[in-house]
Amino acid sequence: MATDSYEVRPIGWVESPLVDPASAPLQGDEGAPDAWVVLEPAVLAGLQGLEPGHDVIVLTWLDRASRNVLAVHPRGDLSRPERGVFSTRSPDRPNPIGLHRVTIRSIEGRRILVSHLEAVDQTPVLDLKPVLEAISER
Amino acid sequence: MATDSYEVRPIGWVESPLVDPASAPLQGDEGAPDAWVVLEPAVLAGLQGLEPGHDVIVLTWLDRASRNVLAVHPRGDLSRPERGVFSTRSPDRPNPIGLHRVTIRSIEGRRILVSHLEAVDQTPVLDLKPVLEAISER
Repeated sequence: MATDSYEVRPIGWVESPLVDPASAPLQGDEGAPDAWVVLEPAVLAGLQGLEPGHDVIVLTWLDRASRNVLAVHPRGDLSRPERGVFSTRSPDRPNPIGLHRVTIRSIEGRRILVSHLEAVDQTPVLDLKPVLEAISER
Repeated sequence: MATDSYEVRPIGWVESPLVDPASAPLQGDEGAPDAWVVLEPAVLAGLQGLEPGHDVIVLTWLDRASRNVLAVHPRGDLSRPERGVFSTRSPDRPNPIGLHRVTIRSIEGRRILVSHLEAVDQTPVLDLKPVLEAISER
């Protein structure tokens, strides 16, 4: 049984021209702007090996989401029937962790410029992971 | 600044024949077995809309990982130079959240059988998300 809880501690945060969640694109490939991921100084050593051009998955904590929502109208469209949140990418869900596939454009110290990130300014960042390459290249 | 912390609460857990982390495959496409994701009864409504055949991303909490590790030898191979954890899929990292792309094979009540899950038995599950389809089908 998994009845414990666990504490996530942000490794950084987003700096983005997106400030209003209501006007943010729903997905990164729907017009999200480039944005900065700024790492906490304490985790900077974790960045070694990442370079411009690499594709990474940014995990965020969607801190403005509602955690007690279990069903939503997909994409907020009231004409579509409600579905369980686990069958959607709704930010409202029990653990509001966002996944964002981006490309690193540049790295300046602990600031990482990434492409098309659909997260609003000051969103906490939990993790960065490389997109997996073919098995032979791991 | 993102200096707060947040609490994640498992929505369920893994039931798998994999019990020893040392013998688990490093990635799901490297021979991981089928496994069950068992949801907590309280979140069962979130499952509506998911069906056998759907591809989903399972987010887990890798509760046996070391959170104070910032650099590792890739895939535990000491002949390879150390790299920052954010450029690897090491379970050891500040927030040990696992991403696992799987296919749903069957759903029996709150038990979901999924393909090739590289997580050991009793690993907490944090979220399920659909793999995004082409933009026209969202």
